[in-house]
Amino acid sequence: MPLTRLEAFSDGVIAIAITLLVLDIHVPATGHGGLGHGLGHEWPSFAAYAVSFITIGIIWMNHHLAIGRVRQADHGLLVINLLLLMSIAVLPFTTSLMAAYLRESSGEHLAAFVYGGSLLVMACTFFTMQRYLLSPRRGLTDIDAATRAFILRRNAVGLIPYALATALAPVSPYATLGICGAVAIYYALPARS
Amino acid sequence: MPLTRLEAFSDGVIAIAITLLVLDIHVPATGHGGLGHGLGHEWPSFAAYAVSFITIGIIWMNHHLAIGRVRQADHGLLVINLLLLMSIAVLPFTTSLMAAYLRESSGEHLAAFVYGGSLLVMACTFFTMQRYLLSPRRGLTDIDAATRAFILRRNAVGLIPYALATALAPVSPYATLGICGAVAIYYALPARS
Amino acid sequence: MPLTRLEAFSDGVIAIAITLLVLDIHVPATGHGGLGHGLGHEWPSFAAYAVSFITIGIIWMNHHLAIGRVRQADHGLLVINLLLLMSIAVLPFTTSLMAAYLRESSGEHLAAFVYGGSLLVMACTFFTMQRYLLSPRRGLTDIDAATRAFILRRNAVGLIPYALATALAPVSPYATLGICGAVAIYYALPARS
Amino acid sequence: MPLTRLEAFSDGVIAIAITLLVLDIHVPATGHGGLGHGLGHEWPSFAAYAVSFITIGIIWMNHHLAIGRVRQADHGLLVINLLLLMSIAVLPFTTSLMAAYLRESSGEHLAAFVYGGSLLVMACTFFTMQRYLLSPRRGLTDIDAATRAFILRRNAVGLIPYALATALAPVSPYATLGICGAVAIYYALPARS
Repeated sequence: MPLTRLEAFSDGVIAIAITLLVLDIHVPATGHGGLGHGLGHEWPSFAAYAVSFITIGIIWMNHHLAIGRVRQADHGLLVINLLLLMSIAVLPFTTSLMAAYLRESSGEHLAAFVYGGSLLVMACTFFTMQRYLLSPRRGLTDIDAATRAFILRRNAVGLIPYALATALAPVSPYATLGICGAVAIYYALPARS
Repeated sequence: MPLTRLEAFSDGVIAIAITLLVLDIHVPATGHGGLGHGLGHEWPSFAAYAVSFITIGIIWMNHHLAIGRVRQADHGLLVINLLLLMSIAVLPFTTSLMAAYLRESSGEHLAAFVYGGSLLVMACTFFTMQRYLLSPRRGLTDIDAATRAFILRRNAVGLIPYALATALAPVSPYATLGICGAVAIYYALPARS
Repeated sequence: MPLTRLEAFSDGVIAIAITLLVLDIHVPATGHGGLGHGLGHEWPSFAAYAVSFITIGIIWMNHHLAIGRVRQADHGLLVINLLLLMSIAVLPFTTSLMAAYLRESSGEHLAAFVYGGSLLVMACTFFTMQRYLLSPRRGLTDIDAATRAFILRRNAVGLIPYALATALAPVSPYATLGICGAVAIYYALPARS
Repeated sequence: MPLTRLEAFSDGVIAIAITLLVLDIHVPATGHGGLGHGLGHEWPSFAAYAVSFITIGIIWMNHHLAIGRVRQADHGLLVINLLLLMSIAVLPFTTSLMAAYLRESSGEHLAAFVYGGSLLVMACTFFTMQRYLLSPRRGLTDIDAATRAFILRRNAVGLIPYALATALAPVSPYATLGICGAVAIYYALPARS
């Protein structure tokens, strides 16, 4: 089975999920206080938007790299990829939840837990996909054992901050969002190229 | 007529429909009971989301396989494909309907009937497309008679659970959703690859 | 300039516009009369959805054919194509307007006029694009004069029903929707292939 | 790294952002004054829609040209491109803000400042991407120094009207929208091809 439609479909779903994030930024109602105050009140939406946008963009880059190492696809890869896309496609909801509850005095910890958890699930699903397609038994790729171990170790290390962000949700939702944002900035930095 | 744009357009519509499903999961309003209660109350949305997401993902895989057997497209294939895309594109609505009414004491049977029916219509349209493009008269493909009969029989069998799910809607909307979910899991299992 | 990205971008916009149509079909509020009554009340949404979906699908097929005759793109083609995409992308709004007002006793004629008019504008923009890219001066294509005249004449004839549908809006909004639906069915019929 | 998926993903995000603009045009509620009055009242939405649609369409064309000059992509280009896509994907929000406040007597200057500013940020990000990929050190492209200087100068000049539009927001939001619209029309004119 050729990989082009797998890539095209994945690109489509990721591109749509990343663009739908904007629907969660609401125009403040006219005539309630001032617009400046209204926009200021929406800063959690802007912060969550930026964090989720860059995070999805980086998962897209990594998806790109991971699929680029594969020579062919099988049924298992299609299904794991579909679960990965589902974990990405749900992010507009969890981002919106995070933004709506960040400054509330009730529910903010649960919202942060769900948000951090959704990123953790996405990262774990991606890790599972990497393991699947790098497995030498399946012969989907020609990667040697050393490179394989390096890629998987780097992927496993990448799960830690999301686990930490999720674990800190009961302490502070700001810590959750801050850690997720720091991860996004870290991976976007040129040093990693 | 080349098949690349047919595939690209179909991939686009299916990718959008699958991603739009998330718009039907609503962030619980702040300050009404607790967020935990609000999210628990939304479980029909999560369940219907997962079932529809995996179902659309599997129809995408099957679409991929079906079109991959074709050497060329004609007007009839374009029209049937368009009707198939219409039956997929309407699923965010029927999924939302199912989720909204699953726990209601009125309208839940009709909602389940519409949901199961929409999946049945989608599966029937896909079956019609398979029959059309495998028809030896049309010469769209080189499949031999035995393979053709096998594919069509497998497709026809695939209609049964959706017919059953629709028929059981007047009895229990949970049965409808459960059967559709079981079908999604069945096709995602590795044994089928 | 290669045509692949022009096609990919156009496919994307058309695929999104056609799929966004579903957002205008609303789930009836729970607890207001019965769901059956609520869905029955929404039939203008379903009718307008089907007409617009098939119409956009057919314009996609025609776009496909038109661009397939071109060897290269220039700035003018990109701009006309952009205006065509704008006329398509606005259809979810005009479709929603038509559906919301069809059964009202006030505004229904204006809504039908806007709906028919939006399809007429789309068809005229497509005709303009055809004229542009078939113009022998520009050398975008190798079509001979007879084929060129035949294509343009067929396109010009295709404008008539939309002009009629728009003109009849002050008489009956049902006539407008009916004519647009008849056009969609006509072009989808196999005889035209 | 091949450029095809970079182009496909960018095309997807831009196509979705341009098509989501239509969600900000609302169907006037039935039974409030007349539909004619309601649609007339929405003219800022139509104007802002047209300006943003054509502007995004032109940035797509320019993106197309810019990426077409590149032979390969590196991590830095992917990140800058992602920021560019983020600045485009946020435009449905700023367009909606502009449309909602244009005729208000409070907040209209801030809304225009945010709208003009969002287009300025997009243009600056595009300029940064051009500088990055035309930089001779990076070897992403074979452009000679004279062409490079010409392209960058033309890009830098293109920033001026957006800076002016943003600077005039405290004076008149109509001036902001008018300048942005004039820029869109200027770049769409055939003379520039």
